[in-house]
Formats: sequence, C-alpha cells, structure tokens
Amino acid sequence: MNNFTETIMFTRGNPAVEALPVDDLSDCAQEIFKKEGKVLFQYGHYSGYGPLRQWIADNYGAALEQVILGNSSMEFLTFLASVMLKKGDRVFVEYPSYDRTITAMKRAGANVVGIRLEDDGVDVKDFELKLKDGCPKFFYTVADFQNPTGITCSLEKRRAVAELAEKHGFYILEDAPYKALRYYGEDVISYRELVPHRVFYINSFSKVLSPGIRVGFLIGPTDLMKEVHAWSENTYIHPALVTEGIVYEYCRRGLLPGNIEKLKNLYRPRLDGILNSLERHLAGQAEWTKPEGGFFVSLFLPDTVDGKALRDNTADFGIKLSKGDNFFVDGRGEQFVRLPFCQMDPEETEEGIRRLKKAILRYSH
Amino acid sequence: MNNFTETIMFTRGNPAVEALPVDDLSDCAQEIFKKEGKVLFQYGHYSGYGPLRQWIADNYGAALEQVILGNSSMEFLTFLASVMLKKGDRVFVEYPSYDRTITAMKRAGANVVGIRLEDDGVDVKDFELKLKDGCPKFFYTVADFQNPTGITCSLEKRRAVAELAEKHGFYILEDAPYKALRYYGEDVISYRELVPHRVFYINSFSKVLSPGIRVGFLIGPTDLMKEVHAWSENTYIHPALVTEGIVYEYCRRGLLPGNIEKLKNLYRPRLDGILNSLERHLAGQAEWTKPEGGFFVSLFLPDTVDGKALRDNTADFGIKLSKGDNFFVDGRGEQFVRLPFCQMDPEETEEGIRRLKKAILRYSH
Repeated sequence: MNNFTETIMFTRGNPAVEALPVDDLSDCAQEIFKKEGKVLFQYGHYSGYGPLRQWIADNYGAALEQVILGNSSMEFLTFLASVMLKKGDRVFVEYPSYDRTITAMKRAGANVVGIRLEDDGVDVKDFELKLKDGCPKFFYTVADFQNPTGITCSLEKRRAVAELAEKHGFYILEDAPYKALRYYGEDVISYRELVPHRVFYINSFSKVLSPGIRVGFLIGPTDLMKEVHAWSENTYIHPALVTEGIVYEYCRRGLLPGNIEKLKNLYRPRLDGILNSLERHLAGQAEWTKPEGGFFVSLFLPDTVDGKALRDNTADFGIKLSKGDNFFVDGRGEQFVRLPFCQMDPEETEEGIRRLKKAILRYSH
Repeated sequence: MNNFTETIMFTRGNPAVEALPVDDLSDCAQEIFKKEGKVLFQYGHYSGYGPLRQWIADNYGAALEQVILGNSSMEFLTFLASVMLKKGDRVFVEYPSYDRTITAMKRAGANVVGIRLEDDGVDVKDFELKLKDGCPKFFYTVADFQNPTGITCSLEKRRAVAELAEKHGFYILEDAPYKALRYYGEDVISYRELVPHRVFYINSFSKVLSPGIRVGFLIGPTDLMKEVHAWSENTYIHPALVTEGIVYEYCRRGLLPGNIEKLKNLYRPRLDGILNSLERHLAGQAEWTKPEGGFFVSLFLPDTVDGKALRDNTADFGIKLSKGDNFFVDGRGEQFVRLPFCQMDPEETEEGIRRLKKAILRYSH
C-alpha cells in the first residue's frame, strides 16, 4: 500500500508517463533516419514533412494543401489569430474554456466572449444572444471531452452551431486532441464533417502518442490556408522534420490504433476510479461532470465553500490544483476545479479526492 | 565530367546534404531515448530540455535563466518583436539584410530602417545619421559572414555600435548562425561579449549540425527574458524536447567541434572555388564580396546590366537566383545577387558562374 507522502498534483493534463511507447518510437526513429535521414535533417518544405502531411490528408479526407504540420497544435491558435484577427475582433469560446486558448486570443487583441456550457455542449440560446452583439471571427471549441470540463457536445447542438456558422459567416476552430480517447459511448461526428468549409480543425499526437515530440496539425478551408502556410514559413521556415519523420514511421507501421486501444484500456479504469472516488467522498457536497473519455473531470463547488481560500491553502492538504479562474474568460472560476485523471492510478486519485474532501470541509461555512 | 543538365540553384542557403552526420545523430537518438525517453516524450519545461539549456549556458558563460531553446532560432525574431515592439517602433537592419528578418519585423508592425553596409560592416556615420531621426528598439545584425553578403563586421565597428547602443539605449539583436564557420582569418569577438546587457544573442544548430532538426536558442539580458519565456510558453507550451535531446547527446559526446572542423574542410575549397570562378569569368564586369567564412558571396551588378530582366530570364540559362529585392528594406535590390556556395561542389559552381556570365552578357547594354 502506497503512503502517498508527496503532494498529489491535479494540475497539468499529462498523459501517463508509463504509457509512452518509447521503445517503438526509438525503433521508428532508427528506421526513418536510415531511410530518410538526408531529407529529415536538411531544410525542407514549409508545411512540414510531406509523407506525414499526406498520411493526415488521406486519413481525414482532405486535400494536401489543406493540411499543415506544426510544432504543437497550440501554435496554430497564434497563427490563425495573426492571419485572421484584427484588434478588437470577437472570438467566442466555451465558458469555461481551455485557459491557453483564452490567453492566446487575448494577447492577439481579440475580444473574447464566453458562451455558457451545459452538460451536452454550449447553450445555443446563449450563443444566439451573444451573436446579436456582434459576429465573432471564430468560435473555439473542444467539442469532445472538453478541456477543462470533459463535456462532449451533442450532435444536435453541433448541427445548430454549424447552422449558425453558415448563417452568420464565422469559423469554427475545432480543437480535437482528446477525440480518439473515448472510453464509453459512441463517437459524435466532428464539426469538420458537418461544415468543412467553415472549420479549422486542429489536432495533435500529444495525447495519443507523445507530447514531448510536439507534432500537431491543422486542416482548414483551401482558400484560407495559403495565408496560414505563409505565416508559418515566415515564422520558422518550417516545423521540425525529424520529429514528424518519427511520427510518420509510427503511423506508417500501423501502430497508432493499437496505442490508442492500449491508452483507452489504461485510462478507462482511471475515469471509473475518479468518478467512484467523487461519488464516495463528495456526493451531496459538490457537482461534477461525467465524461465518457478524455483527460478531465471537473468539479463545481457550492457557494457555501470558500473556493479562493481552499485553493490558496491546498498545500496544507497535500494536493495541488490548477487555478480555476484561468478557464473563465472573465476570471470568475473560483468555485471551479479541473481534475485531470490520466496520469495517476485510481489508488492515488482516491487519496487525492480524500484530501480534496478534507480541504472542502475545512473551507465550508 | 558532369554535364549539369539540371538547373543550378543559387537560391537557398542550405548546408551540404552529404555533410549531415545522420549516422551519429541516429546513434545519439538511440542512446538519449533509452536514457531519457520518459522525459523527452512527455510534457516538459517551457524553456526547453534542461541539460541542453545548461550546456549552452555553460558554453556561452550565461546564467540558465538567460537561455531559452526554440524550434529554430528564427522564431525568436517573432517572439522578441511580439514582446518588445509597439506598432511603428523603429528597427535598424543592415542594408542589405536577411530577407526573413525584414519580413518578420515588418509584419510585426515595425518601421524597418536600413543602415548602409560596407566591406567591414555597417557604416557608422550612416548609423548615427539615422539615430537622429529616432532611436530603434533593435539593431538586427548578422555580424559574422552576413546573410546575404558574407561580410564580417570589424572589431572597431562593433565597438562603435556597442557604444551607440549604450548611449542611446537600444538592443542589438545579434544573429550568429555562421560564426563558427570561419575558413580563413581570425574570429572577431561577438557583440554579446562586448555589451551583454544590450544584446539578444540568437544562434542555432542549423548550419553546424542540422537544419531539419530545428533547434535554436536565444541568450538575453536576465531582466528581459522572463517575458520571452512567457511568450514562448503561451505560444506552444514548450519547444520539441525530442530533437533537443538528440542535439544534447551529440554535444555531450563532444562531437560538435569535430563536425565543425569537417564542415570547414568541406566548405573552404567551395569558397575558394566560387571566388576563383568569379575572378575567372566576371572580373571587370561586376563587383563581389570576399568573405572568410559562412555560406554566401554576393555580387553587385553594374548599372549597365538590366538586373530585373536578367533575373526574370535566368531559366533560359539554366540557373536560378534569389530575388535580390527582398534583402533590401526598400526593395531596391535589382542589381544584387546572393550566391550561396556550400551546397554544391566547385565544379558545379564553376558551371553556374559560367552560365551567370552568359546571362549578364545577354542583359548588358
């Protein structure tokens, strides 16, 4: 039995380190360096390593020129903001949303507007209401197993939002890093499949393979991609070919589906574990989401808990939490707790939730 | 004897592909993935892989917090512009200067001003004159074997510019990718050694090891680096650790000096070759620079040659040239020809210069 003498970290959404397929990746590196070393270690095409681009185009039913590779998917937020936003332009995000997107859009000068999030995705009424004050350039969404809540948007709501995008002429920035990691239930088709000409689809190999390799990609409408390709080239000539080559070899060998299956089998009991721990310790004292996949469950503290004091003093209880405020465009996230569950086993999660309960009781009034 | 039936490309400044140490890099990848795979393939520190940062700090006599790694050195131009420039701020560059820097600064909203370049570096009188119209935020310079001219700035002029930086309070953005590749003569000490608190020093492993690996670094004044680190993190969380790990292992093994020596021995006769070819074919018909290292020689066509017509019709002569205009902040580079010489052997260069001569004769009046 583990004593968990160290702080339990409910902060970053990291993959389980024990699940990183280091040996396979190393083997792929050996082979692709042998076959393609003179290409991968030399200057190359501004949109990234051709065979991986083509592999992605084929897998997503896109034309090659719609696909661009990058050193992470996140950087595309900055590229798209740089290419498409003018200062003061509106950008819609979910409320709450991924904190780093809010930061990226704000620093690009956007007027970031939060759309209320419900258990089955954005509140379409709230979306329509906010459209009346002005159409956004983008609606940024993590439609599957959202970061930070774990919520998945229903097909019905996706259709409604896609219709609004068509009608009003904004773009959907669909960020899908967790989509492949569904532990229960059925996949919902993506915005990209519903209205491809209205969607910039962003994904990466960070959650399904390796984050440290920093390989992401963007698929966008053909007529708008030329500027994105140029922005990328004018930023860093081209992304890292060496890492893209390793990822390509891994995909070419057909190893990705097996790795995703392995991850799902590892993470499914971890999702079960955290939901069971929450039920065991916090039933009636807080509300939380019930995701069917991804990396996060989120907890909403009732107003009877002093969320700020709790977060300021988690060290006393041997846990660490992300600052909930950052996920809310207006900074009002004091009662919100994001709980990543993939990088620890259910035993550690159980101990973490037990400690969280103590902290909650301490700051309840 | 090669017939050179294909177009001879005097365009991109690529390293010689035959000189890329692919086997060593592959071997380094194997070993570092085995030792550090769980670190390199996971999320990591926002400033890059620690041991490589430390190695650079030690080699450049800098504190760790002064050093940040990136996916190319070029991207730091955008980071620095984003962090330090306001729209309309002045940025001084050499005239001519690296085309991609001009683009990066212009797109960041800078007012880019060219300072006349002489055989031994910038014209200090012209620098002082332009300071009277307003102090820049940065002076961007490739002081060693400049891109595009191959010119190296003398120590005397470096001292004069460093003094101006102190007096007027601007920063020197010293880009040094070619500095280690000196084929003749003696190294001139860097701006960073002269006035470290006034210098952002940018370098990379692109020219001395591999460009496709995209590992660059920036060393800056401690008090200003915090914002750069934050900008980097908010752009892509952190740069690619996997490639940084490979570079670190290569450096740790002490292989870098030997590789640089090998490159110098490969490139020295190529520099000799192009200078001999120019002398043989173009003496009295054009002027050119006489670099002691780096990747480029540059040619200035006399006004009796129609530079624009020549460039528009190089295909007729089986050569390809970069657009000279892009190296000049005001676009007036019609008579300027950058000649990269490292990626082809002297025989091919000789044939290329022979063809260039024919084109020049055709468009002389």
